[in-house]
Amino acid sequence: RSVVSVQATGVINPSVKKDLDKVVDTIKADEIEGKKGVFCRCWRSAKFPYCDGKHAAHNKETGDNVGPLIIEKP
Amino acid sequence: RSVVSVQATGVINPSVKKDLDKVVDTIKADEIEGKKGVFCRCWRSAKFPYCDGKHAAHNKETGDNVGPLIIEKP
Ligand code: FES
Ligand code: FES
Repeated sequence: RSVVSVQATGVINPSVKKDLDKVVDTIKADEIEGKKGVFCRCWRSAKFPYCDGKHAAHNKETGDNVGPLIIEKP
Repeated sequence: RSVVSVQATGVINPSVKKDLDKVVDTIKADEIEGKKGVFCRCWRSAKFPYCDGKHAAHNKETGDNVGPLIIEKP
């Protein structure tokens, strides 16, 4: 008889600032470059907190449907 | 001999707008109420795309360290 114990951790963020208890980023709207800021919500961007498009690979691999938050400057 | 096959789906978003292929939210900075907008990056907020504090329960349950993006208005 073999017993296998599996735990699904459900961790969303695999690698961003794992030394912090909680990753909170604060951005001033008027410091966003260009007309809009595109912000990562998949926790896989190399440009975090900005989106670099990696959500596409995550969605393809997992069947997920996550994407960025876009902030348009006035 | 026992063989167990486990697949971790790695889905980040359990329930937000699952009818969409990709959830992208676009917000005009000057339409944010108050001095700042606090935006969800854990995909568990009942006020999505805004944060309602649910990241705390997610972090406690899983040992994760996710938190919101804060956009400060000019
Ligand atoms: S790279 Fe994370 S949302 Fe685009
Ligand atoms: S509820 Fe999702 S980041 Fe706060």
